[in-house]
Amino acid sequence: MSHAIYPGSFDPPTNGHLDIIKRASEVFERLTVAVLENPRKEPLFTHQERAEMLERISTPYNNVEVDYFQGLLIEFATRKNTRIIIKGLRAISDFEFEFQMALVNRKLESRVETMFMMTNSKYSYLSSSIVKEIASYGGDIRQLVPPAIYEMVINKFSTST
Amino acid sequence: MSHAIYPGSFDPPTNGHLDIIKRASEVFERLTVAVLENPRKEPLFTHQERAEMLERISTPYNNVEVDYFQGLLIEFATRKNTRIIIKGLRAISDFEFEFQMALVNRKLESRVETMFMMTNSKYSYLSSSIVKEIASYGGDIRQLVPPAIYEMVINKFSTST
Amino acid sequence: MSHAIYPGSFDPPTNGHLDIIKRASEVFERLTVAVLENPRKEPLFTHQERAEMLERISTPYNNVEVDYFQGLLIEFATRKNTRIIIKGLRAISDFEFEFQMALVNRKLESRVETMFMMTNSKYSYLSSSIVKEIASYGGDIRQLVPPAIYEMVINKFSTST
Amino acid sequence: MSHAIYPGSFDPPTNGHLDIIKRASEVFERLTVAVLENPRKEPLFTHQERAEMLERISTPYNNVEVDYFQGLLIEFATRKNTRIIIKGLRAISDFEFEFQMALVNRKLESRVETMFMMTNSKYSYLSSSIVKEIASYGGDIRQLVPPAIYEMVINKFSTST
Amino acid sequence: MSHAIYPGSFDPPTNGHLDIIKRASEVFERLTVAVLENPRKEPLFTHQERAEMLERISTPYNNVEVDYFQGLLIEFATRKNTRIIIKGLRAISDFEFEFQMALVNRKLESRVETMFMMTNSKYSYLSSSIVKEIASYGGDIRQLVPPAIYEMVINKFSTST
Amino acid sequence: MSHAIYPGSFDPPTNGHLDIIKRASEVFERLTVAVLENPRKEPLFTHQERAEMLERISTPYNNVEVDYFQGLLIEFATRKNTRIIIKGLRAISDFEFEFQMALVNRKLESRVETMFMMTNSKYSYLSSSIVKEIASYGGDIRQLVPPAIYEMVINKFSTST
Repeated sequence: MSHAIYPGSFDPPTNGHLDIIKRASEVFERLTVAVLENPRKEPLFTHQERAEMLERISTPYNNVEVDYFQGLLIEFATRKNTRIIIKGLRAISDFEFEFQMALVNRKLESRVETMFMMTNSKYSYLSSSIVKEIASYGGDIRQLVPPAIYEMVINKFSTST
Repeated sequence: MSHAIYPGSFDPPTNGHLDIIKRASEVFERLTVAVLENPRKEPLFTHQERAEMLERISTPYNNVEVDYFQGLLIEFATRKNTRIIIKGLRAISDFEFEFQMALVNRKLESRVETMFMMTNSKYSYLSSSIVKEIASYGGDIRQLVPPAIYEMVINKFSTST
Repeated sequence: MSHAIYPGSFDPPTNGHLDIIKRASEVFERLTVAVLENPRKEPLFTHQERAEMLERISTPYNNVEVDYFQGLLIEFATRKNTRIIIKGLRAISDFEFEFQMALVNRKLESRVETMFMMTNSKYSYLSSSIVKEIASYGGDIRQLVPPAIYEMVINKFSTST
Repeated sequence: MSHAIYPGSFDPPTNGHLDIIKRASEVFERLTVAVLENPRKEPLFTHQERAEMLERISTPYNNVEVDYFQGLLIEFATRKNTRIIIKGLRAISDFEFEFQMALVNRKLESRVETMFMMTNSKYSYLSSSIVKEIASYGGDIRQLVPPAIYEMVINKFSTST
Repeated sequence: MSHAIYPGSFDPPTNGHLDIIKRASEVFERLTVAVLENPRKEPLFTHQERAEMLERISTPYNNVEVDYFQGLLIEFATRKNTRIIIKGLRAISDFEFEFQMALVNRKLESRVETMFMMTNSKYSYLSSSIVKEIASYGGDIRQLVPPAIYEMVINKFSTST
Repeated sequence: MSHAIYPGSFDPPTNGHLDIIKRASEVFERLTVAVLENPRKEPLFTHQERAEMLERISTPYNNVEVDYFQGLLIEFATRKNTRIIIKGLRAISDFEFEFQMALVNRKLESRVETMFMMTNSKYSYLSSSIVKEIASYGGDIRQLVPPAIYEMVINKFSTST
């Protein structure tokens, strides 16, 4: 059975992330969206909150599950018994960075493949940082994040800042 | 059953192409390597020769078949009843061009996904054009093309130029 | 009065070109869309046809006029008595090429400024070459070119190829 | 009347910034140079100091005024009643970043256009960070910042570090 | 006598750095590998440790010496009486950043040339940050750093984190 | 003795090429500027004319000689008994192409190093193609090519086109 992992920080998930989840869920029989818990970075949302948001937006896709991991992605993939990592590429993107990580991961475990999917070009400007930047100034993020998590994102800003 | 198409000119196939064939054949249950017959370009090798070279180098991979097509890739994919197109990306690459083609193909048929796999970084300099350039000057291409087709490539140059 | 020139080959005009025409006509008081007649390139459409297509799609914008020129853009700009050249940038783009041309033009005539506007990201894949490629294979270009010129583009392919 | 905003951190202004101010003041009838007060970043110069430096170097250009803003650029533009944002592009540049911000701003307010102008290629290496880096080591920045603000920049380093 | 400087942070040195040291030592008669002491950054290894690691891996190359410097590279080069700075470029690289620094250095001292050498493409993914990232999670870095310093790198992680 | 080759088409040489010749002649004890005779391309100037132009502009540099070659650069380098190839990089450049060729050359002969030098940023827009484009329209190329060859370039256009 084809099983892929879609890892990321998702702090918070955006419409661009949702676009990749939808596409990947159609290509693979099973998709695990995996929240990275990086102990050295301070995310705005806890990993539990990020996982909850991903759960909400993944509800329509029966073959999608949400998980989290610490440490090396490659070890998580091995533990989950999958060989496929999905990454989204935007036309305006961290292409070089993603490519470097993919080569590193291949070096660490040659049996795991990173496959890149293109985010819809209408989201090419969109990133979690942009969402946070705009929300922090009270800008309208209704078109940037999925409706199912809009309230959770907005509430974070009205309480935390 | 997961079925992907790996399209290209393959004029001739290189070790970089073979690297992608091998990787993709491990990720998907069935892989069709598809030679593009472009009536407006003059390839060095006929599409029959290119298909034969691909057959030879694909022999070790039981789930790989070779085919050719004219016209729009997206129509070939529909005819073959697959939704997945594979493209190789090199660190030094026609990334922008491939991205553009992938967006065009998605526009023409939204159900077909282009997925990018990374060529091994040790082949990042390698392309069919480079092989032809070097072979035309009598340079050594033994490390650039698979052994199974080396003679076919060399012979073309001793006869045609 | 602010007057800008939007030069190009427009062989044929696309929805991306129309997007820039619309935006530029809103920023400047007068806009000249200028078809380049390059005697060393063989366009699919004559410069008269290209100008006619531009006339058709510019009809809604009262401050837009269509013209053509041969030779150096900078001399055309001087003749038209304007100092502003508009170029569209796509996220996937010939950015480096456009930048080079802009620097050359500045070198030749320092009083002329090139200003870059962003094409709508939903057209980031779109170019005249792509339109011709798809149309030549009988693919559907209805979403790629403005309705007002769709027939003209299609007719060219049914007669010329 | 054509009115454009040229926003930035200007911490401190460089000869590259001055080059854009000069060019933009020749293209537009009125130019507002707008200092971003970002409460989450710690600039070396206060926004008052940055505005003062911009005032000094803009003195020769009668149609240039200096202002500052907090929050979303797009709201400042709306408040100032202008539709045009100017950004400088360097051959070596944060092109992708600027492009992303421009797309975000268009998403937030489609009537505001970002227009890119090229910095003179002889300043392609220059940025506020480079000026601060060199000045902090006592290097000579006389060719990097306008003469009118040289003393202000140097004094900051003799007192603050 | 041709004498070049190869500056960097080397925090820690990688197989990619060693590749450049080897190549540069073959092109130039004398090579100084120079550790940057940046008082505003907190490296993982002290500059003495970084110099010691470089000494160890440079042992096979008789014309290589190790040194360190603070402040402007260009002043260090002048002090060492050399006109040549060597930088490594990776296919996946900070090309733009290195280019900018080279232009700045030329501006500060036109007699000093920066020359770029290509890192072996098999190390195109490799950087000091990647080594630290992987080692911090207990991943295997044996193929990433030279054997002569493997213990020093590993020990730092078992003690400091 | 350090000896480098600076290869190219030089059709015709530009001020950017001269900038690299001057810089490289200061770094290396001997410099061979090598005109590529490519039997499959039709240059505007014969290889004898290109060599003559290079001779003229290299006159001030005693350690520079001019030569030409056919076939693989790497074989020419071996024949000339040198290990160093010089290539110029422009901020706006064919960086990826040059990098690819350098990796290919290293693959063919690992003892030959390609070293990249930066062209002066004030020539970042300049190429032989640009010179020919402008000259063909009767534009002024006096600032684009060295005075010593200006007449030769202009004459070619008055006679050949």
